[in-house]
Amino acid sequence: MRSSLYALSIVFLVCPSMAFSGTRLVDYVDPRIGSEGLGRVVVGPCAPFGMVRPSPDCTPSPNSGWLPMPERVDGFSQVHVSGTGGGPKYGNILLLPFNGGSDHTGMYDYRENETILPAYYSCSFKSGIKTEITSTERSVAYRFVYPESGTRNLKIDAGFFLGETPVPDAREAQQFVGSEIQVISDCAVSGYSRIRGGWNNGRAYTVYFYLESDVPFSETSTWKGENVTDSKFQIDTGEKTGALLRFGEKGDTVNVRVGISFISELKARYNCEKETKGKSFGQIREELLGRWEELLKRVEIDPTAQEEHKRMFYTALYHTMLMPSDRSGENPLWSDPVPYYDDFYALWDTYRTSMPLMTLIDSGRVSEIVNSLVNICKRDGFMPDARSGNCNGRTQGGSTADIVIADACVKGVAGIDYDEALRAMLVNATVPPGGNEEAEGRGGLREYLELGYIPHGIARAGNRTVEYSLCDFAIHQVAKCLGNDSLASFYLRQSESWKNLWRDDYEHDGARGFIMPKDASGNWLDELPFGHSKSQRPTYRYTPLTFEGPWYTPWWNMFFYEASSWEYSLSIPHDVPGLIARCGGNEAFDRRLDTFFEKGYFNVNNEPSFMSPCLYHWIGRPDKSGERVLDIIRENYDDSPQGLPGNDDSGAMSSWLVFNMCGIYPNAGHDYYLIHTPVLKSAAFKLESGKTFKITADNLSADNRYIIQAYLNDVPYDYSTIRHSDIMKGGELRLVMGAMAGKWGERMFEESEVKK
Amino acid sequence: MRSSLYALSIVFLVCPSMAFSGTRLVDYVDPRIGSEGLGRVVVGPCAPFGMVRPSPDCTPSPNSGWLPMPERVDGFSQVHVSGTGGGPKYGNILLLPFNGGSDHTGMYDYRENETILPAYYSCSFKSGIKTEITSTERSVAYRFVYPESGTRNLKIDAGFFLGETPVPDAREAQQFVGSEIQVISDCAVSGYSRIRGGWNNGRAYTVYFYLESDVPFSETSTWKGENVTDSKFQIDTGEKTGALLRFGEKGDTVNVRVGISFISELKARYNCEKETKGKSFGQIREELLGRWEELLKRVEIDPTAQEEHKRMFYTALYHTMLMPSDRSGENPLWSDPVPYYDDFYALWDTYRTSMPLMTLIDSGRVSEIVNSLVNICKRDGFMPDARSGNCNGRTQGGSTADIVIADACVKGVAGIDYDEALRAMLVNATVPPGGNEEAEGRGGLREYLELGYIPHGIARAGNRTVEYSLCDFAIHQVAKCLGNDSLASFYLRQSESWKNLWRDDYEHDGARGFIMPKDASGNWLDELPFGHSKSQRPTYRYTPLTFEGPWYTPWWNMFFYEASSWEYSLSIPHDVPGLIARCGGNEAFDRRLDTFFEKGYFNVNNEPSFMSPCLYHWIGRPDKSGERVLDIIRENYDDSPQGLPGNDDSGAMSSWLVFNMCGIYPNAGHDYYLIHTPVLKSAAFKLESGKTFKITADNLSADNRYIIQAYLNDVPYDYSTIRHSDIMKGGELRLVMGAMAGKWGERMFEESEVKK
Repeated sequence: MRSSLYALSIVFLVCPSMAFSGTRLVDYVDPRIGSEGLGRVVVGPCAPFGMVRPSPDCTPSPNSGWLPMPERVDGFSQVHVSGTGGGPKYGNILLLPFNGGSDHTGMYDYRENETILPAYYSCSFKSGIKTEITSTERSVAYRFVYPESGTRNLKIDAGFFLGETPVPDAREAQQFVGSEIQVISDCAVSGYSRIRGGWNNGRAYTVYFYLESDVPFSETSTWKGENVTDSKFQIDTGEKTGALLRFGEKGDTVNVRVGISFISELKARYNCEKETKGKSFGQIREELLGRWEELLKRVEIDPTAQEEHKRMFYTALYHTMLMPSDRSGENPLWSDPVPYYDDFYALWDTYRTSMPLMTLIDSGRVSEIVNSLVNICKRDGFMPDARSGNCNGRTQGGSTADIVIADACVKGVAGIDYDEALRAMLVNATVPPGGNEEAEGRGGLREYLELGYIPHGIARAGNRTVEYSLCDFAIHQVAKCLGNDSLASFYLRQSESWKNLWRDDYEHDGARGFIMPKDASGNWLDELPFGHSKSQRPTYRYTPLTFEGPWYTPWWNMFFYEASSWEYSLSIPHDVPGLIARCGGNEAFDRRLDTFFEKGYFNVNNEPSFMSPCLYHWIGRPDKSGERVLDIIRENYDDSPQGLPGNDDSGAMSSWLVFNMCGIYPNAGHDYYLIHTPVLKSAAFKLESGKTFKITADNLSADNRYIIQAYLNDVPYDYSTIRHSDIMKGGELRLVMGAMAGKWGERMFEESEVKK
Repeated sequence: MRSSLYALSIVFLVCPSMAFSGTRLVDYVDPRIGSEGLGRVVVGPCAPFGMVRPSPDCTPSPNSGWLPMPERVDGFSQVHVSGTGGGPKYGNILLLPFNGGSDHTGMYDYRENETILPAYYSCSFKSGIKTEITSTERSVAYRFVYPESGTRNLKIDAGFFLGETPVPDAREAQQFVGSEIQVISDCAVSGYSRIRGGWNNGRAYTVYFYLESDVPFSETSTWKGENVTDSKFQIDTGEKTGALLRFGEKGDTVNVRVGISFISELKARYNCEKETKGKSFGQIREELLGRWEELLKRVEIDPTAQEEHKRMFYTALYHTMLMPSDRSGENPLWSDPVPYYDDFYALWDTYRTSMPLMTLIDSGRVSEIVNSLVNICKRDGFMPDARSGNCNGRTQGGSTADIVIADACVKGVAGIDYDEALRAMLVNATVPPGGNEEAEGRGGLREYLELGYIPHGIARAGNRTVEYSLCDFAIHQVAKCLGNDSLASFYLRQSESWKNLWRDDYEHDGARGFIMPKDASGNWLDELPFGHSKSQRPTYRYTPLTFEGPWYTPWWNMFFYEASSWEYSLSIPHDVPGLIARCGGNEAFDRRLDTFFEKGYFNVNNEPSFMSPCLYHWIGRPDKSGERVLDIIRENYDDSPQGLPGNDDSGAMSSWLVFNMCGIYPNAGHDYYLIHTPVLKSAAFKLESGKTFKITADNLSADNRYIIQAYLNDVPYDYSTIRHSDIMKGGELRLVMGAMAGKWGERMFEESEVKK
């Protein structure tokens, strides 16, 4: 709370023109939440699903570029991803205002203070130069205020990128390909940066820029490699290039606008002029705030909620709408009249909650994204599981675009050709992806189809098997929607493949039955062989708590990716009843869940356990789901910079929080939400139809944390789930809270739904 | 002969400055040979392995762009491939000089006359405008001479490309992605064209250009789509763009220089200025002729040879050095300090004769190409079998880069890391390529490894099996060179896989034993199932002469690609003794070969039968090999525009001719050449060491067409092969010809070589 007031005071002090009367929802957005620690969200000004995400770049830098003071700042680059882990991507076209001599290119500076707000970033350097940043979708506006004394200079580094390593070929490292720069007038510079690799091991992408200043340059120089010259341009010869500009005239303030494009320098200029021409810095910021306000107000929460909860909620909603990047019209690979999105980073993270949340508040966006995914399959051969820099790359487990499509389909998202989408899903399910089998599609597909599971020896055998089962269920769902019963049945059967790795008699910590490694001959493996030596056959013990192998076993080659068997053995969202049966029935499952949470086997900071707290629903105990959810939020989420317990992963963590604060949770690929104790007394979804669906929790308090009764549009409602179609009708789900759990919610579905 | 004199007279008439005294070898190059009919060679001025290949583009157009008069001309585009079949590629940045109004963009013209010479193209249009073209490696020089009356205009079409179809997604069709153009001064224009697809179904490539005129523009307009405006630029919005220029001042001649780049417009400008600045049209042409002369004189043939033979020979040598394209420093995908070649179109065509010929006359080029292939594997995952537009695509059969490497290795080509090259070969041999399995690597690899052959149901099962065997042998060769005996043995065994499709008891036209389709269960198939209907199971009969299936069976899905079993059952170059044994021994093999040629089963216009005429060597009858070769050349090759019997395929046909005219023929991947009756009385190879190796044929005449004795450096030489290392030592192979075949050449190798 203190830090937020501080930020507001800064705004009033330094940006009086930006002060506003009356509170807007966007005022509750604090981009610092989740910026430190594991969260890794981008702090700079961003448009919803925007193409640019400017941010200061600190050394050493996470993918978001930013680190808290006192880290040094290399400058401000224009493109970042938000909340991602692993190797870096982007960090292109770096600006750094500086004063003093300009005979070298390696300058940097240190912050003395910093302000981070939605649609606004500013900092003052030790040099006395102040930088303010706001943005549009594809352009960035800078306002530099230089001290009276000293020169007013700007460095443009077209060779900079995040995560440069001494071994440029290192896995996940970005690698420099080329760059170019030219001073095209006394107030404009253009150029590009071409980079390959990065987290998704992608092909080369090119970030073009066009920069225009409102103060003419009095001097310019450009560089290539180590060589600074007075040439007006530097041609791409595979070396790093940049420019040093000096601004003439009197005055302290220089406004600079930077357009970005993935197509060309002229397109970057077009983007710059279309979005910023004739607009002041303040206007640009206000317009961006207005766009956010428009989206944020689609969910109106209890106005009396705690300020912290408001900040957590609306910041989480904001984080949900940062990624992927809308690059429609900016695709250098093909030009179809279909939206084009990039930076799926990764669908494995976002299919569970981010995409379902967007379906509730902006289904048109979901339609665009799904159409983009299907079109990528048409042109590139496969839908992405992850994609960045115009290149599919890095499947973590399943081909989870399938689940995004199934979720849209069962919820009736309009504007999608589901027949074509189904064909793209069937590519995932039937065509081996080849190569290193981690770029797209389903690695180990042939083994999966032949054996019914992925055997040990293939990377991520465990979670691939589990997730391919879920993706098969997604195909079942879409085929069923389309009336293709034979296909639906086939994939429903195949969706049981997870059972082929279920080791019934394996006991661990009181639980019986785990998903465990099996070899291609069908033998369960307690000791996993690793390494390639002919004389040695080293092994290591694999247990349901194993996360890592010996140090020379790459972590992406583990049986489960980023998780243990305790987690994945509870992650069968498409067949929880089947899972419960395998676990020994309701009581055993209840105990198992309790052990899971109480022993700390639950991993709050990664997606595979996202739905685990709600599994109590399936044994008629939504009260326990609610308890777990409230505990998790209370213990792990807050409105501080460390307020996210893991990588936000393109808003995955944040959208998990949004749902759970409202008291509903989606099971992606299914048409229902699980109802549990909310954090907020009310949340009203302003539906696209113009209707409103409101969830209220009467008498909710720290003591009254159990749902004892529920009413849907004033009719008593006994089920612990609500269907998407019922939400779409508008109305109110009224929960009556009490201090003791009762019988409410013992059943999840109406009878007709039980066997689904 | 007549047409060639005509061409020379044109030169003397219209280009007196280009007349030369004393005959140069390049004067024997006639780019019209193979330009009509099936040959499809590019007729425009080209540098050796150059990046640009300008040519007039006629509608409808082959890949080379050109068609003979009276076809209309759309203009002159800057990039083409030479000799290729199938769908089109390139045809980018079209120029058309015109007079009259410039309010539309769809103009074209008709030729009244045309001159095609090495390093020079010219034509006069019905409009009275004359166009002359010459080129450098990466730039094109135009000289336009306009009639006194009328305006002097030039159209630059940045949206043009070859083979636009009404169904842009058609297989092999090029598809438009985007384009851009800007008039950057009163004498310069730059822009780009971005195209995807084409024959290799490649990702988007971008051709940037920079055009400079020696006469200032008096008026300019630009267009996008249908809309012509006076704007100085057109930004890429996924539509076609172009510019219409009018030249001011008095005079009739306008010189225009066009730089091309695959990196950027600035790089295109750099290429233009570096290669053409300050040089006249005539100088540029003379320099290019000089470069060709330097290469052509590495083989000096009998100066008394027939003029037709000289033209055939040096034109074929010229055609061998057009492709692939040296794009070092022009790779938009990565920037390694390794040469970068594109337009392998395809190695399947060129591994047999083009690459071995380059090894003899310019091994440094082979080293560059192999290093490029290995580097592509490092960066893109696989070496190409075909590659164009910076994208691997379209394997036709084997992973034939393997054979290119083996050929270089056994011949000791320096400057290659063969350990790294072997690793790239092992990727082909062990990693399934995925997707549609036709872009790179070995489709059906898992079946090949599991069953020892590719079963029916996988496209091109027959020639894939045969060619994978050969590629396995290539791995054997390299592993052996490197002393890795176990790997060498493993792949030698695997190179016998062709035998698994050898159907011993199948008889056809007197021959016994053919490579025939087999299903995955091991059943031979006389009737091949096709189609997907559940109720129907249609089949068609497959025989050793079958080329095509029912019309709805795509030809690229046939058992053999572009060939019959009669052809492929003789195409086991790495184990001809094993093949002879399977065919029933020497006599049966002799009869079989005779049937093959006499019944017309031999296909002169495709590569799989390239070595078939020389198979008589293996039964001790090099005299019959010589007869076949001479007959084939006499009946199918001449110095006319139809002088090549098939697609030249990046010089494959032409390099076959060069070898056979000299009387030697390489078995790619082996270190020897087969010796047979030459067409030429002498051919002297000027080796890079400074030594010369000369092949002479004493008494050669129409009557004396048999080698009766041979001497290597004056020592009697009885074998019908000569090793590469013996050629490299320099010296002379003197063949003594007679009217009757004798005992010469009954043995192929020295004893120690027999069991290789």
